[in-house]
Amino acid sequence: MSFANALYDGLFADGDMAALWDADAQIAHMRAFEAAFSRAMGQAGRFDETLAKRAADHIARCPIDAAALSAGSASDGLPVPALIKRLKSGAGDAAGAIHTGATSQDVLDTALALTLQATTDLIDSRLATLAADLAGLADRFGAHPLMGRTRMQAALPVTVADRIRLWRAPLVDHRARLDLARAQVERLSLSGPTGTGDFTDVAGPMAQVLGLTAAPLSWHTDRSGIVAYAGLLALITGSLGKMGQDVALMAQQGIAEVTIAGGGTSSAMAHKQNPILAELLVTLARFNAGQAGLMQQAMVHEQERSGAAWALEWMVLPLMTQATGRALTAAIDLTGRITAMGASEPHKTV
Amino acid sequence: MSFANALYDGLFADGDMAALWDADAQIAHMRAFEAAFSRAMGQAGRFDETLAKRAADHIARCPIDAAALSAGSASDGLPVPALIKRLKSGAGDAAGAIHTGATSQDVLDTALALTLQATTDLIDSRLATLAADLAGLADRFGAHPLMGRTRMQAALPVTVADRIRLWRAPLVDHRARLDLARAQVERLSLSGPTGTGDFTDVAGPMAQVLGLTAAPLSWHTDRSGIVAYAGLLALITGSLGKMGQDVALMAQQGIAEVTIAGGGTSSAMAHKQNPILAELLVTLARFNAGQAGLMQQAMVHEQERSGAAWALEWMVLPLMTQATGRALTAAIDLTGRITAMGASEPHKTV
Amino acid sequence: MSFANALYDGLFADGDMAALWDADAQIAHMRAFEAAFSRAMGQAGRFDETLAKRAADHIARCPIDAAALSAGSASDGLPVPALIKRLKSGAGDAAGAIHTGATSQDVLDTALALTLQATTDLIDSRLATLAADLAGLADRFGAHPLMGRTRMQAALPVTVADRIRLWRAPLVDHRARLDLARAQVERLSLSGPTGTGDFTDVAGPMAQVLGLTAAPLSWHTDRSGIVAYAGLLALITGSLGKMGQDVALMAQQGIAEVTIAGGGTSSAMAHKQNPILAELLVTLARFNAGQAGLMQQAMVHEQERSGAAWALEWMVLPLMTQATGRALTAAIDLTGRITAMGASEPHKTV
Amino acid sequence: MSFANALYDGLFADGDMAALWDADAQIAHMRAFEAAFSRAMGQAGRFDETLAKRAADHIARCPIDAAALSAGSASDGLPVPALIKRLKSGAGDAAGAIHTGATSQDVLDTALALTLQATTDLIDSRLATLAADLAGLADRFGAHPLMGRTRMQAALPVTVADRIRLWRAPLVDHRARLDLARAQVERLSLSGPTGTGDFTDVAGPMAQVLGLTAAPLSWHTDRSGIVAYAGLLALITGSLGKMGQDVALMAQQGIAEVTIAGGGTSSAMAHKQNPILAELLVTLARFNAGQAGLMQQAMVHEQERSGAAWALEWMVLPLMTQATGRALTAAIDLTGRITAMGASEPHKTV
Repeated sequence: MSFANALYDGLFADGDMAALWDADAQIAHMRAFEAAFSRAMGQAGRFDETLAKRAADHIARCPIDAAALSAGSASDGLPVPALIKRLKSGAGDAAGAIHTGATSQDVLDTALALTLQATTDLIDSRLATLAADLAGLADRFGAHPLMGRTRMQAALPVTVADRIRLWRAPLVDHRARLDLARAQVERLSLSGPTGTGDFTDVAGPMAQVLGLTAAPLSWHTDRSGIVAYAGLLALITGSLGKMGQDVALMAQQGIAEVTIAGGGTSSAMAHKQNPILAELLVTLARFNAGQAGLMQQAMVHEQERSGAAWALEWMVLPLMTQATGRALTAAIDLTGRITAMGASEPHKTV
Repeated sequence: MSFANALYDGLFADGDMAALWDADAQIAHMRAFEAAFSRAMGQAGRFDETLAKRAADHIARCPIDAAALSAGSASDGLPVPALIKRLKSGAGDAAGAIHTGATSQDVLDTALALTLQATTDLIDSRLATLAADLAGLADRFGAHPLMGRTRMQAALPVTVADRIRLWRAPLVDHRARLDLARAQVERLSLSGPTGTGDFTDVAGPMAQVLGLTAAPLSWHTDRSGIVAYAGLLALITGSLGKMGQDVALMAQQGIAEVTIAGGGTSSAMAHKQNPILAELLVTLARFNAGQAGLMQQAMVHEQERSGAAWALEWMVLPLMTQATGRALTAAIDLTGRITAMGASEPHKTV
Repeated sequence: MSFANALYDGLFADGDMAALWDADAQIAHMRAFEAAFSRAMGQAGRFDETLAKRAADHIARCPIDAAALSAGSASDGLPVPALIKRLKSGAGDAAGAIHTGATSQDVLDTALALTLQATTDLIDSRLATLAADLAGLADRFGAHPLMGRTRMQAALPVTVADRIRLWRAPLVDHRARLDLARAQVERLSLSGPTGTGDFTDVAGPMAQVLGLTAAPLSWHTDRSGIVAYAGLLALITGSLGKMGQDVALMAQQGIAEVTIAGGGTSSAMAHKQNPILAELLVTLARFNAGQAGLMQQAMVHEQERSGAAWALEWMVLPLMTQATGRALTAAIDLTGRITAMGASEPHKTV
Repeated sequence: MSFANALYDGLFADGDMAALWDADAQIAHMRAFEAAFSRAMGQAGRFDETLAKRAADHIARCPIDAAALSAGSASDGLPVPALIKRLKSGAGDAAGAIHTGATSQDVLDTALALTLQATTDLIDSRLATLAADLAGLADRFGAHPLMGRTRMQAALPVTVADRIRLWRAPLVDHRARLDLARAQVERLSLSGPTGTGDFTDVAGPMAQVLGLTAAPLSWHTDRSGIVAYAGLLALITGSLGKMGQDVALMAQQGIAEVTIAGGGTSSAMAHKQNPILAELLVTLARFNAGQAGLMQQAMVHEQERSGAAWALEWMVLPLMTQATGRALTAAIDLTGRITAMGASEPHKTV
């Protein structure tokens, strides 16, 4: 996953986030699903228990080739049929205890749930870092006067602490929102081809093994949890975009309310230092805002499962997580580079 | 508020929702804010208590002309300065106990909070009705067989109950989401021109009078609650759009899984009956999905308060509530018109 | 059509544009279509010519009640069946020479073509005015120095003329784009219920009467022309948004590169004057940008004609034209209020 | 550039298109710009001609490391300063005849123009192939009857030729639109740091060498051409999405109007064959529609050049071209797989 091309990786890429979403991570999650499924089906007496254990062991060890799954996506529209074929071949008489009763969407959505769990952990940890860094910034420069500006006009004097407080508070709220959102996305998907499978005896143990919860009902076609999560990603980048916008405005000559160390060389003007991280936060906010609307378009599934609406999530949600991850590293980086904020003397009311 | 022009009101309009957002309702909310503000400031000893009471009484009775406020919007960008001027003129020596210390955004955002409170009540009530109606539909036709379809292809037989269950469940979830969302939108705004006002002693009593909660911090520039609410509106219309899409697919000749009574006349083909309510649900879902992305663009405020980002909310959010209201009446209407669902005999697996 | 509620009409409304899209205008256009259709069908010998003339005369005079058409939209999903019923009743034996062979979409899309023709005229005329006004502004202040700013940082000195040139040039280009776009939207729709009607002998004369061109093929499902037009509206508001953004930045204290007369009173701060028209241009640009994406979603029609995708146009396109109209009046107003630009002395290179 | 992760490359990737946008291609274009710039500046007598030639030769041969440019993007927000530094080091006394007077945006926008030229060639060639293939499909199955469907309901009988005609015609129109669009995107950018550079004597020769035209004015901040091009990409995928939607509807059991060979295996249901290419066309149409709206958001530049708005293009436009490229290969593939269309006997009017 890279935006633009590799020449821009230094600007846009977030290696930690990318690793959570790459092919290896997804194969590991799909493998975990299938192994847990075989095992739980065996324990529930739905598969022969011995065969099921053997199947689970095989699934855990079976070499899986990413290129073959990509070829499977070309012919089947998603990598699961090729994966199942691979898992079953070489499983001997345990093959029947693999995947039977589940469906592609169970596999992919559970893998998504596990991916979002790790994504949430990463975002939450960065939000915590950034909130602490902003608190530190307020400790250092909070007492400095700042002209409060509303509608782009000087209004009344405030302090640096006042402004930082309103950058920081939404981040703390977003952490609480993320925590609430976990219940809606960190869910096992296990409802079979038409969402009507009864896996009451299997879902609980399986969810526990995977560190997820068992959803009360199929979520094949109800994407509310995923789409709301995407909305939350855009809220996070939106709040960071507001901070970036402020910093870019504060860095203007004639305003000079912030000093940022390093970066931002111009190819034409040696005297310039561009607030590139601040600008990047605005860019990523606008990017995610648009993608959040597109995720909402993916709510309109047809019948028991939609290919068209579902695949739209596959395209959009990874982009949003990358943009969110990068916005957080950029905001942390930017905060660390701020060496001065506000004025040394109180503003006079204009 | 009407989409398209008046010729389409029959299709798009929702009178009940429109009434919650019209000029009269907004004037009433702004009046309520200012009266409660004067009174609470008097009780807190910040305004002379006698003058404050007199001010509150005056605010409650003072005739306010919508046209004058609209003219104020033309010159000031929002109706509040004209409102305050109107309230103060004729208030005599109580004029000083009106609005002083508050800001336009306090007034408009509190009016928005009150409007969203009523909006949530209306949506919630309609969601309850629709969920009950869908339960009724399942009672009547739930046992009928239906071909489960995935990726637009016949998959395995299910029942009408199976499909209705997955239409209905998200609506019940949305009611819970709406209830959670109340805390983030039904909040008093009271933080003054730069969001730094200390109204600790005033906000509590004032919020209580207005039926809101007191926000711990200024939300002038943190629009997360409002934008998340807009996202929830899109989730609701998205779920209804999925139901509409299904009904339109079920109504196809050759599929014939639903019968809808009344409506849908064609100007050219007397034999046709178009599933217009089902289609409308899809349209409104797509409409709100796009608007939800636009609300996310309104997250990027500048400094202590933004005019440009804030006004984008004014344009988009009312449209979304209208679309949501109409989607609910359309879904209720459609559900009531369904006179048959599913097949009378079980499908054979294809 | 009003955004928000009537209290904001002073900010958002554009009466001239609204009149082009209101119910009366649409009824007039639909009437014009039906009269021209009857007449041309008579002339082509497809309807009895005498009856056709009588039908056309009747159509031209027949009172049509907007409320009845709105009721028709409620039951039929669009106003045309009710319109045709109204036209035929009272037409006596000429009733058969009314609408027969055409379809609702022919009527509504031709009415849209006529509406867009008038819309283009209005926009083009305002673009010409604004371009001239900007030229005048350059005449007055063009020689004044201005700090060229890139990536929000002082770069190298330019002049006021340099900046205005880059505000103005895209407007001139947009006029040329509008002119090119006419061919793709000012088209008669006449292809019958499934888009397969052969009206070669009728379409030419009819188009000429209506001031449109005859499309070579049905455009029931090919919305490219309409959607591209919407994209052009967003380009126009985008260019104006860029100008608005610049003015808001120039109006900052500490920058002070522009002076705007009048408007922008604050309810809390008597010393403030907010650049509300500049901000409004940014708001309208962002609004239309989002709507342009939504119009693109309306490209995905089903089969011979889609209700769901088509109705999305009805909701979005009128909003976009209103926003465009208002952006133009706001930009013209703003330009007229500028009383100073740039610095009186050359900037030193920073 | 890959959507989702590598497991989905088989579904989403378009190697030919990716090659036009990758780091190597961009380096080649930037190199071409700088070499042509040095040479033309020398010919115009603005650089010492001998040094300029030497500079151009050096630029053409100088090894350039993508990783170093990516690192430059991290520190400078874009790869050009690092590129220039690389080109100048080792150029000896020709270093002064490299890039001087130009700006990063000149380099990147010219590289974009060259990339879009190749992109247009590729899209145009595929549109031609697809149009021919659809004509072939009409030759084979055009005479077969098909039930015309409007608003998802059987309307009146048409033929397969009628439907294919309305799939094909917009593609032919899009080719004409692409041809028109060339003039607005295949333009040299050469206007220096603040867009005010006078390069009249240099731009013409340089444009000719690069196969571009010389723009009459700086387009640093007027993104109309690029954004309109993005809108056209969405029109193309929109038309293909309409075709995909139709095919998915035609492939339904109970409708059975199309037979598609190969692909679409289900992991759970051996009897199923999913119309994955048809669904993919819908997904890509919705994806590009949303991105087109986001490109419109990138119209709002600040002052002489914006980092934030410009970088949004870098994120969105490559995604759109990939989606467009893939939609075309998918549509061509799908068309080739259709082995039957329409009914063998005429439909009776319902």
